[in-house]
Amino acid sequence: MKSAKRGNVPPFFAMEVLKAANKREAEGKVVYHMEIGQPATSAPSKVTEAAEKALRDTSIGYTEALGIPPLRKAIADHYGRMYNIDLDPARVVVTTGSSTGFMLSFLSLFNAGDRVVLADPGYPAYRNILSSLDIEAVGIPTGPETNFQPSPALIDAVPGPLHGLLVASPSNPTGTMLSPTELSALVDYCRDRDMHFISDEIYHGLTYSGEAKSALSYTDDVVVINSFSKYFSMTGWRLGWMIVPEALVGTIERLSQSLFISAPSLSQYAAIAAFDCTDELEGYRENYTRNRAILLEELPKMGLDKLASADGAFYIYADVSHLTDDSMEFCKRMLAETGVAATPGLDFDPNRGQAYVRFSFAGSTESVKGAIEALRGWL
Amino acid sequence: MKSAKRGNVPPFFAMEVLKAANKREAEGKVVYHMEIGQPATSAPSKVTEAAEKALRDTSIGYTEALGIPPLRKAIADHYGRMYNIDLDPARVVVTTGSSTGFMLSFLSLFNAGDRVVLADPGYPAYRNILSSLDIEAVGIPTGPETNFQPSPALIDAVPGPLHGLLVASPSNPTGTMLSPTELSALVDYCRDRDMHFISDEIYHGLTYSGEAKSALSYTDDVVVINSFSKYFSMTGWRLGWMIVPEALVGTIERLSQSLFISAPSLSQYAAIAAFDCTDELEGYRENYTRNRAILLEELPKMGLDKLASADGAFYIYADVSHLTDDSMEFCKRMLAETGVAATPGLDFDPNRGQAYVRFSFAGSTESVKGAIEALRGWL
Repeated sequence: MKSAKRGNVPPFFAMEVLKAANKREAEGKVVYHMEIGQPATSAPSKVTEAAEKALRDTSIGYTEALGIPPLRKAIADHYGRMYNIDLDPARVVVTTGSSTGFMLSFLSLFNAGDRVVLADPGYPAYRNILSSLDIEAVGIPTGPETNFQPSPALIDAVPGPLHGLLVASPSNPTGTMLSPTELSALVDYCRDRDMHFISDEIYHGLTYSGEAKSALSYTDDVVVINSFSKYFSMTGWRLGWMIVPEALVGTIERLSQSLFISAPSLSQYAAIAAFDCTDELEGYRENYTRNRAILLEELPKMGLDKLASADGAFYIYADVSHLTDDSMEFCKRMLAETGVAATPGLDFDPNRGQAYVRFSFAGSTESVKGAIEALRGWL
Repeated sequence: MKSAKRGNVPPFFAMEVLKAANKREAEGKVVYHMEIGQPATSAPSKVTEAAEKALRDTSIGYTEALGIPPLRKAIADHYGRMYNIDLDPARVVVTTGSSTGFMLSFLSLFNAGDRVVLADPGYPAYRNILSSLDIEAVGIPTGPETNFQPSPALIDAVPGPLHGLLVASPSNPTGTMLSPTELSALVDYCRDRDMHFISDEIYHGLTYSGEAKSALSYTDDVVVINSFSKYFSMTGWRLGWMIVPEALVGTIERLSQSLFISAPSLSQYAAIAAFDCTDELEGYRENYTRNRAILLEELPKMGLDKLASADGAFYIYADVSHLTDDSMEFCKRMLAETGVAATPGLDFDPNRGQAYVRFSFAGSTESVKGAIEALRGWL
């Protein structure tokens, strides 16, 4: 069987690094895992307890395609507490991680041939999901000048018709954030040009210099994507959500019924408790805050002084152009010679990623300190 | 926000029936649920125990995109026991229910504009997933003459190019099965014409007059879709699998990484135990066997004597053309006047479904007996 053209998405370079890191560990050598974009922590304990209870008391059957009502309500309430937004639970769509949220939003908003603009560097799955659905991902080169975020001026410079804009603030891999003014300007820009606006808010809650604003603060005419994987530390539970305009709910519900039936039920029952775990989750964030501070202090001393602002998420995106013009080869060598595993920028930016490396600080402080010691002298 | 054309999949009529049934129950009236395509039973107890253990011992993180190795091995071993097929675990892809299995197979095998042939009546999500991906679903009208299954002669009669064939044996909604000779003939037919062959084997294990053969018995050049939702009674766990040709594994792995990251981890850890629950699962099947026997004996006495063969799955597809030319209206009236909820054939066959109703016998024997008593006299 030959695969279809559109199924041929590129591999993640991170996987190669991960394989090499695992091989190294299997040989009994130390590895400092800074290549992994997920918390080293488990779900908060009340979530685990709720899952245990659901296993005992519930038959784990299909749920409503849009998610169980108490979880949709809990998510809506979260918007009240976190953003002071009064949100109708009817606009909440529970998804299988952010992954099916992207799929549902792209399929419901764009036809084949449509063009969606996004920042390079960015989360590589955006491009791959879009291209597998025959939607063109139009990357805008961004750099420190615009804090690695898109701007009206940058979008204006793109030739040809555009049907949507996808923003992520905080962003993966840079951790940079749009200011409220910048976010609001992009919302206005899209509204004036009849472009759909998709706001990836998966790293909300993980911010280090001021809270993130939701795009919902400026408009109801936006698709917001979020997830329990990052702040709530529930990656393997595969649970996320979308907030969609009222007019889109029916379309998304029908698509979701056919494409996914429902999100994992046990994860849904358990996730209701996630909003009641602030102490534990803030403890996780303090760990990231410590790790981030160490890296932002120590990396520049080693010559890595061109770092993205890392105001949110758990990544440092470092310019290594003075050291290499091949970030993949650089990451392999760094792993072999120091045990520090990081992700080559190529995964996030097919054009300029050769000059960048992403360090994740989602692991333990001990491991971050170990990495710094291992890099000292080598860099 | 206006939704895109391809996102506009039709609703399931079953949902309307379900809503009416739930409303009726909320009013304190009895409902015999024969509209629901999922087991009334929970996962077998060893699966629940394995999930409890994984909750205690494991951090529920992302897994490999293709699934955790012990589960892939357990699935491969299952093919040895059940079909006497020696299967390389490297060809096993763990998916989030059969849903993402369909998505991954369609995206990896077909480009936009390709045409895939399938039997009408059939599982309605096939059409909707295909059309949302801009692949044309070409329905072949089938009836009792071919046991509601496609045949080389029927496919020959379809004008225009065809790029794939999707078969389901046992089928939803009819429960009919292809004989080994028929299945093998379709495999040969596709091979000779360079058409991709997709075999939906989700109801394997639930058969009442001889075991089902896997398409893998005749070729390695096939995509097989299966799931833990039916025989293994694990719907809400959202876990399934595919068996794919070796040459397709890399493509599927990369697509899966970008589109879904991984299937729910807890479900994966727990499902390994599912293959060690034969006694409990065979008990579930005995319940279906009893229910089926009651319906096949009693429905003809009430004039419903044109029934699909129901050799597998847990459905009876009944010709009601002597009673109505509007199966949706018929189902609504039946629910209102007898409390029996069933699914109008329109969900499965947009052209001739007006003349059919699907009764699911996945519930308890008590509920099936109650439905028969309620229908007696009314029909």
